[in-house]
This record gives sequence, structure tokens and C-alpha cells, in this order.
Amino acid sequence: MPMGQVIFVSAGPGAADLITLRGARALAKADVVLFDALTDPALREHAPKAQWIDVGKRGFCHSTAQAAINALLVRHAQSCAVVVRLKGGDASVFGRLEEEMQALTLAGIAFEVVPGVTAALAAAAQLQRPLTRRGLGRSVSLRTAMTREGQLVAAGPVSGDVLPHDDAADTEVYYMAGRQLPQMGAQLIAAGWPAQTPALVVSKAGCPDMASSDHTLATLDSASKLHQDRPALLIVGAGAMSIDGFPDRKALIDVHQHQVQGPSD
Amino acid sequence: MPMGQVIFVSAGPGAADLITLRGARALAKADVVLFDALTDPALREHAPKAQWIDVGKRGFCHSTAQAAINALLVRHAQSCAVVVRLKGGDASVFGRLEEEMQALTLAGIAFEVVPGVTAALAAAAQLQRPLTRRGLGRSVSLRTAMTREGQLVAAGPVSGDVLPHDDAADTEVYYMAGRQLPQMGAQLIAAGWPAQTPALVVSKAGCPDMASSDHTLATLDSASKLHQDRPALLIVGAGAMSIDGFPDRKALIDVHQHQVQGPSD
Repeated sequence: MPMGQVIFVSAGPGAADLITLRGARALAKADVVLFDALTDPALREHAPKAQWIDVGKRGFCHSTAQAAINALLVRHAQSCAVVVRLKGGDASVFGRLEEEMQALTLAGIAFEVVPGVTAALAAAAQLQRPLTRRGLGRSVSLRTAMTREGQLVAAGPVSGDVLPHDDAADTEVYYMAGRQLPQMGAQLIAAGWPAQTPALVVSKAGCPDMASSDHTLATLDSASKLHQDRPALLIVGAGAMSIDGFPDRKALIDVHQHQVQGPSD
Repeated sequence: MPMGQVIFVSAGPGAADLITLRGARALAKADVVLFDALTDPALREHAPKAQWIDVGKRGFCHSTAQAAINALLVRHAQSCAVVVRLKGGDASVFGRLEEEMQALTLAGIAFEVVPGVTAALAAAAQLQRPLTRRGLGRSVSLRTAMTREGQLVAAGPVSGDVLPHDDAADTEVYYMAGRQLPQMGAQLIAAGWPAQTPALVVSKAGCPDMASSDHTLATLDSASKLHQDRPALLIVGAGAMSIDGFPDRKALIDVHQHQVQGPSD
């Protein structure tokens, strides 16, 4: 029997209609679908006859779980025509894609990757907060709040610009920020962001029961209760700002001044 | 007659099947579609009866063109039931979304935003280069190579980490990098990236006639001819690395050492 093929399909976050047409078509021809626990069950309608296998991993024991997923993926590809590996958001961003690609390469199995909507983009769309803003947000960074060693990490405003008179106050998006919310405001202020920097917390981005709350870094610790036990991301800087009523951009201009002049202390 | 509604739909980059199901369904109910020149013509099949209006703007005269687009958008929304504003990639990332949202808000017109696949994610999928890598790439930054004043901007490796012993070498993606390619290698080296940092140039990401070329920052100037007159993005750092044959990660480890220890000069 010839080897099967693996298609990594990015499902988008939350709602099933955020998958791409290409992703939905890949599902329609799948014999087996390996999916993560957080994927919207409505996605199953695209592949009703396929065998659906939940390989969702939670918590911190990633390495064992990842090896088991790699082995399952190889095993099914060796016996099935088309295996879809369905991942939430976009597979290339915090999707642990490299490990699975390497396992398939070692086993001599062909694969392709279908891109998707990553959570930050779904949050920005749902809340109508563009991540880039003319004259205020020239870059968007996607980060995780914690390293694999479990350390909390916060980055300061971008300081490496060749041209220090550039006018950008950038946007940082922290994925998987739920557990870190109580500490992140203080950490980001310590890293150089002004206390009044806008900070937006979005939990279950892309889902019908999405929730969001507006803060500054100084008041961010109150977000923790509001989003308890829900997967959350944190948007800091220009992209966190509401466009409703054309709010005073003073906080952002302060961030800009800070970046240009450096911290006053 | 009641006011119409505007749906900002992110088309994804290049191929028409990279639009989301939600985006395709929005097109199907559109009376008018305002689209940019770069959008795949095959997207028209989703809205064959709608009036399609090309509002693509090229070159550097953005401000006039943007005001005209805003006015068109408002005018059509005042006379049509459903106006789709179709944007390439994801509308929230370098999509000039804020200006159009503000024009609609001023005119009292309701809108929603459908997210999509941004070019960096399509490039990563097509080339099978995950933008985050375990132990090597903890963050992804999306930037433009030029400010609106036409200045070339290059950012150095992230230096603001609270925990300087973190193990990340990050990924930077420069959008709209085509014209800047001859200078960017030297600029990024001047900004602090080691000369051997992997650099991947992708033109027409997401399209069937996508092209890509691998470089280091030291050899990046040769990319210019290869991608002449094609919209290009530049990926620098961990995400630029091929996984084929599990290449030696020395270049990336050098970047990491550099970030931890600081430049040696």
C-alpha cells in the first residue's frame, strides 16, 4: 500500500467558519483527522465520514504528549490515504509544527501546510481594533507570556530602531497569557512600558462567547478575575486602543515620547 | 431607505481559496464589493451578481487615495444593503483599516470585520517554515520595511527582555520589502543581527507563482534581482530556517549567543 499524505490544517481560533476554504476542502477528503481539544466541534461537519481522534494536550507535560502525537501521525499516515492534522489558530505560530514536520520527514511521509487565522487577528477583527495604526503602530509582535521553562517573560518597547526618530508605538500580543495576567502589568512596566499604556485582554478570541476588557498596564491585575479559567491573550500598545469616539491618543503619544527619549529615570 | 452595512473581509494573500468560510459567505450576500488591485480575480466567483469596484492604490500617494476610498465606502453603504470591503491578507495588519472604520463611524454606518490569513502565515505554510520554533523562536514580529515618510527602518534583535537568559532567537517578518532588499542586509547587521542570520525572501506569498530564496543577511543583496518587481516579504531569524535535512542550527545558536551576551564590539 502506498504511503499516505499529511495535511496540516490551521482551523483558526474558535468559530468553525474561520477556517479557510482550502482547509475545509482538505478536511472533506480526510480519512483520519487528528485534532486538538480546543477545536470547534462544528468543524466535524466538513469530514463526517473521517475518523476523528482527539490528541489535545493540556497542562505542562508537553514533551511526552508531543512524542505520542508524532508517533500517531506517522502511524496513521502509513496506513491511510489522507491524514489531516487540525490545529487551532495558525499552525506556524505557536503550533508546535516543526516537531511534527520533522517526525514525518524522518519517516519519509509527504505533507503540506494550510495556513489560517491566528488568534491575535481574530481578536482584532472581533473587537474592531486594528493591530497596526497609521502613525502609531508600525509593528505587531506575537509572543508567549511564558517560556517552556515556565519563566514569565515580558518585552519592553522596541528599542533597536536604526532611526530613533521613527514615530511608531508598537503592538505586542501575548498568547496564552491567562495565568500570567496578575503579574504582567508590573512586568511590562518594569520592562519599560509606561503605566498608562493601553492593555486589552481577550479571552476565547474568535468564539461566540468571547469576552474582553480594557485596562492600562497599571490596572491590568484586575483582568485576572474577569477572564478566570478561559484561554486569554493580552494586547498591549497601539493595537489595544479602541477607535470608538476617536479617543484621546495621549496615552499612546506618551508611549511614543518614551520610546524616542528613553525612560526618564 | 435604511442604511447599509459594511463588512470588511480579509481575503488572505494570493490564492482565492485562502479566504475564510465566513469571508466567502459575506461575499455571497454582497451587493457591492470594493476591492484592491492585488486580490485574486477568482474571488469574484463568490459574488457573481455584486458590483465589483477596483479601488486598488499603488505607489506613494496614499493619503489622497485613502480619502477617496473612504468616501466611496460611505456613499455605497448609504445606498446599498451590504457592502463588502475586500482587503488582501488580514485587514487588521497593514490594511489601513482604522481610517476606513473611522470614516464609517463618523457617517453612522455599522460594520463588522472578518479576519484572514496574513501574508507571513501564508509564506510560512507554503515554504514549510514554522515562524515559531521550540527553543529557538519565541516571538514573531510583523513589520514594514519603510515608514510612511519613506524612511528605511530595521529593528535589531529584541533586547528588552526582563530575563536575559531566555533562550529565544526571534523571527522578524518585513512586509513590503521588495524595494528595500538591496539595503536591508546591511541595515539589519548594523542594527545588531549577526551577518550569518538566516534570511528568507518570499515574493507573491500564497500565490501559485510564489518564489523564494534563501540567504544570510551578509548575502541578502543578491535577492533583489531574483524578486524584481514582485511584492516580497523578508523573514529573518528562526522562522527563516529550513527544516529539510535538519540543518545545522549553528547560525541560529550564534544569534542566540549574541542576544544573551550582547554584541562583542
